[in-house]
Amino acid sequence: MTLPAAESLHLSRVLRLREGDAVEIFDGRGALREGTVRRADAHASVVAVGDERQPAPEPPARLVVMQGLLKGDAMDAVVRDATVLGASEIWPVITARTNVPAKGADAARQRWQRVAIAAAKQCGRAVLPTIADVRPVSDAMHSAPSASSACLWLTEPAAADGHQDLPAAPCAMCLAIGPEGGWAPDEVAAARAAGWQPWTLAPVTLRAEHVTLAALSVVRYAWDAAGRRRIT
Amino acid sequence: MTLPAAESLHLSRVLRLREGDAVEIFDGRGALREGTVRRADAHASVVAVGDERQPAPEPPARLVVMQGLLKGDAMDAVVRDATVLGASEIWPVITARTNVPAKGADAARQRWQRVAIAAAKQCGRAVLPTIADVRPVSDAMHSAPSASSACLWLTEPAAADGHQDLPAAPCAMCLAIGPEGGWAPDEVAAARAAGWQPWTLAPVTLRAEHVTLAALSVVRYAWDAAGRRRIT
Repeated sequence: MTLPAAESLHLSRVLRLREGDAVEIFDGRGALREGTVRRADAHASVVAVGDERQPAPEPPARLVVMQGLLKGDAMDAVVRDATVLGASEIWPVITARTNVPAKGADAARQRWQRVAIAAAKQCGRAVLPTIADVRPVSDAMHSAPSASSACLWLTEPAAADGHQDLPAAPCAMCLAIGPEGGWAPDEVAAARAAGWQPWTLAPVTLRAEHVTLAALSVVRYAWDAAGRRRIT
Repeated sequence: MTLPAAESLHLSRVLRLREGDAVEIFDGRGALREGTVRRADAHASVVAVGDERQPAPEPPARLVVMQGLLKGDAMDAVVRDATVLGASEIWPVITARTNVPAKGADAARQRWQRVAIAAAKQCGRAVLPTIADVRPVSDAMHSAPSASSACLWLTEPAAADGHQDLPAAPCAMCLAIGPEGGWAPDEVAAARAAGWQPWTLAPVTLRAEHVTLAALSVVRYAWDAAGRRRIT
C-alpha cells in the first residue's frame, strides 16, 4: 500500500527508514499489521503489508472526553493523553471561562488529529479517537447520550456531592473537563439540569492539562479491575 | 515573621506584593495561616501571621514515590505532581536504564525542593514531601518498609501478574516507577525477591513522566472511596 503524504514524509525524513526496514501500520479503526518498507519517499512511500499484530487493548465502553479549550501545548497534551488512555471521542468546547481564541479552530483540529496519530503510534493503539468540531459547551452537552444510558460526569474539585463511585460494570462515560479557570456556576447548574453529575476526581486541584490524564487513569483502572472480577 | 531569602525574593519581585497585601504562609509540616505583608524586601520580607487556614487534605497513609531519574523537566514534573497528589517522600534512584548523569545531584535536589515548594503553594498543600538523596535503586529498595507493613508496588506495564487490587483500607504504599526505558529484568527479579509486587497501572504504556501522576491519581481516588465507605 502507498502511505498518505504526511506518513510518507514521517517515514522517510523523520524516521529515516529505507527499503527493507520493518514497520507497523494501522488504519485508525482497530487494525494493526506488520509491514516492510518497499519504497521510502517523502511524498508516496510504499509498504508491503504483513501479518496482524495485537494492538493495545481498547476500553470496554464508549469514552468521551469533553474538554474546555486550553492553550496550544496544553490542549495538545490533553489530546495525546486522551488518545493513549483510550478515549473514543474528544469534544473540544468553548466555555464561559475559555480564554483561547476560537478562530483558527480548523487548523487546530488538524493539529490535534496529527497529535492523536502520533500518540497512537507511540503507545501501540490501533484506534484513533474522533475529534469533534470546536463548539459551545451547551451544544455539546445536548449531543451527549442520555443520563440513563451513560455516566455523565463533570469534573468539579469543589463540589460537596462530587464523590462518584465508578460503576461495577463498565458503561459509556462522558467526562466534561473544564478549562483553566474551571466551570462557571451557571455552567455547573445547566449541566446538573441536563443530568450531569459533579465529579471530585482528587481532593486537590490539578493543573487543567492534567485532569484528563488523571481522570482516564482512574476510569481505566476501575474498568480493568471490574473486567477481572467478571472473569474470575 | 521574617521570610527566608528565596521566599522574600519571590514575594517582592515575582508576586510584586507590597505592605498590606494578603498572603498565605505554610511551614511545610502541615500548618497554613493567613498573613499580611509588613515589609516587602528582596532579602528579608516580613509577614504578620494571622488565622489558621484549612490546607488541602493529606492522604491517610504514608505514600512513597521511588522514581528512576528522568531528564530535567520530566523529573521536575514528577516532583510537582507527586507533591500535588500527596506524596510524603520522593526517592530519586539510579537504575540500570537511567540515562541521566548522576553528578550535579546536589543542585538537582535543591531544584526539586524549590519545585515541591512551588507546587505545594499552588495547590494549597501545607506539607512538603521529603526528597531523599539520589542513590542506587538497590539501596533504596532495602530502606523501604517490609512487605508485611506496606504495599510495595513496582510499576511494570508488561507483567502477567501485575493486576493489583487496591487495599480496602489505606495502608502505607511505596511505588517504584522506572525511568524512560523501564526496569531491567534483573531489577524486577531483585524487587520481587525483596517483596515488591509488579503493578500494571494501565493497559497501555504511558510516558515515563506521567506514570506518577496516573498512579497517584488512582491511589488517592481509591483511598478517598475507601474513606467514604468507612464513614457511611
